[in-house]
Amino acid sequence: MKSMPTLTAFTRLLALGALLVLGAAAQAATDPLPSWNQWPAKQAIIDFVQNTTTQGGQQFVPPEERIATFDQDGTLWVSHPMYSQVMYCLDQVPNLVEKKPHLKDVEPFKTVLSGDREAIAKLPMKELEEVLAATLTGMSTDEFQAEVKEWIAKARDPRWHRPFTELTYQPMQEVLHYLRDNGYKTFIVTGGGQDFVRVYSNAIYGIPPEQVVGTAGVTKYAYDKDGKPFLIKEPKLLLNDNNAGKPEGIHLMIGQRPQAAFGNSTGDRQMLEYTKAGDGARLSMLVLHDDAEREYAYGPAQGLPDTKIGTFTQALYDEAKKEGWTVISMKNDWKRIFTVEQSPN
Amino acid sequence: MKSMPTLTAFTRLLALGALLVLGAAAQAATDPLPSWNQWPAKQAIIDFVQNTTTQGGQQFVPPEERIATFDQDGTLWVSHPMYSQVMYCLDQVPNLVEKKPHLKDVEPFKTVLSGDREAIAKLPMKELEEVLAATLTGMSTDEFQAEVKEWIAKARDPRWHRPFTELTYQPMQEVLHYLRDNGYKTFIVTGGGQDFVRVYSNAIYGIPPEQVVGTAGVTKYAYDKDGKPFLIKEPKLLLNDNNAGKPEGIHLMIGQRPQAAFGNSTGDRQMLEYTKAGDGARLSMLVLHDDAEREYAYGPAQGLPDTKIGTFTQALYDEAKKEGWTVISMKNDWKRIFTVEQSPN
Repeated sequence: MKSMPTLTAFTRLLALGALLVLGAAAQAATDPLPSWNQWPAKQAIIDFVQNTTTQGGQQFVPPEERIATFDQDGTLWVSHPMYSQVMYCLDQVPNLVEKKPHLKDVEPFKTVLSGDREAIAKLPMKELEEVLAATLTGMSTDEFQAEVKEWIAKARDPRWHRPFTELTYQPMQEVLHYLRDNGYKTFIVTGGGQDFVRVYSNAIYGIPPEQVVGTAGVTKYAYDKDGKPFLIKEPKLLLNDNNAGKPEGIHLMIGQRPQAAFGNSTGDRQMLEYTKAGDGARLSMLVLHDDAEREYAYGPAQGLPDTKIGTFTQALYDEAKKEGWTVISMKNDWKRIFTVEQSPN
Repeated sequence: MKSMPTLTAFTRLLALGALLVLGAAAQAATDPLPSWNQWPAKQAIIDFVQNTTTQGGQQFVPPEERIATFDQDGTLWVSHPMYSQVMYCLDQVPNLVEKKPHLKDVEPFKTVLSGDREAIAKLPMKELEEVLAATLTGMSTDEFQAEVKEWIAKARDPRWHRPFTELTYQPMQEVLHYLRDNGYKTFIVTGGGQDFVRVYSNAIYGIPPEQVVGTAGVTKYAYDKDGKPFLIKEPKLLLNDNNAGKPEGIHLMIGQRPQAAFGNSTGDRQMLEYTKAGDGARLSMLVLHDDAEREYAYGPAQGLPDTKIGTFTQALYDEAKKEGWTVISMKNDWKRIFTVEQSPN
């Protein structure tokens, strides 16, 4: 009987040791955000998920209200030097001219066909919009889907020479998975074309077409010569899913205020405001592109270079700080940038 | 060793018996559509589900493409003598006049306030639309939601004196569950107001707001005096989710062609055509209200009385027969009508 206490103590110590080892292993094995440095953005995400999913907690959110929305360009994947959808439109011009040869000598199509990148970059917005309208409308939704599918499989980013679909941000992919694993429904809410993004969203983000909200045009129901119905994409805007259009689009397509929203530019401001204005724990986050070496650096917030694509103004930065949104520093918060490991150039 | 063959045969017989008993029990316990008579509509649904979910089968549909759409009024719940949403609008007129007293003596509000049902029923469509616009727009989306929630809890059907939410069709509830149990995502695609139906769709059909497509108006992002953002419902139509508007709405909000679609009137024709025009196994079904005793009888297909609410023409009936859609006879296919058992009157 005398040796019992010692034995018990020893057993306890053993058990404690096992617990510590197992606990550490379990924690390492289940870190949901391994590509994030711990502070402060990662912790904000983890706190939000724990607070909203702990049964009985004050900030508990029932599963059916767990909605998280993500901008795409610049938030989930690379959007410099140009939105991939604009590259798609430019790449479609030769096809378009084949079908409509008279466009060959008409501006802005003539400039696009010239391949002169500098001249193309200088096209005024109005002329660029003509190219977008001509390549994004006038065909059936099925034809458009097939064309985008073909393009996205072969298109390459001009800097990394990889498919765009490999240039999604690994840390954000982890956030998508982490939220879904905790009962959140993840949506894309993009200024880009809804029909465009829906072609690949499930394959690369695990987000099905019906969870993609984006800029959308009118479609018109029609019948082909065999009486088979189809939908034709009309050159008429229905939803401009940018700025105030984002909360409006969220209401139209989702019908619930998000609990969490992620963006990277002034076009996401209203979505983040709308999200944060809800009751309880709400998470609004902005990706700041401050990593010229591993990706790009642009703002002009915090003295970063200005840009027309994914502008992040100082006013937006100040609003974020004032309203309790979290700014994600690509440089400091992310251990790794892309899903496919990639050398800087 | 001699007794072995006999023993083996006996064991086999025993096993076979057990299998038969267990099999029958399992089948009885798991009949997914107990409120349906076996032929032919029930069998069409079961065949469709088995064909599209049998791995390796020729008509197998991957889970992410399993989309089923349901009209609401007359397909999932009772819509006679008047759409519940119209009753809501009429019921809101006293509230409206309280806020805007000058409307008290202005038509059509004056007639609605009189409570004279015959006179109200005779209001021309244009005047009825004025009532709808005045009671469905001009407030914030949050205010509207709260008003509908309050109304739906206390409103009663004029014939059965029960909440509308108890007058959903039990056989269709079984179809919703059966499809979901087999990996289908179920959507409502209604001519009714999207914001209206979203208030109760999850509670009564298990269909969350983001899976309700319906007639939708423009909303406008604004700020209240404290700088808090909200969305205001504008009197401007964005999507008329009827007729050709249904496939157009499906493309806008879902982005995939349904594998199965259910309706009950000419307003659902294009949705069923569009669904059936897809490849592989597609299910298009129409509920025919031919049961005056247990619910209502209207068409005018098959010599049933004509109606302005949920019209089912002979041309629609003929198209259904020609195109291989299944017409569901309420009288013959359904053992039971409502989720809440209800005597005829």
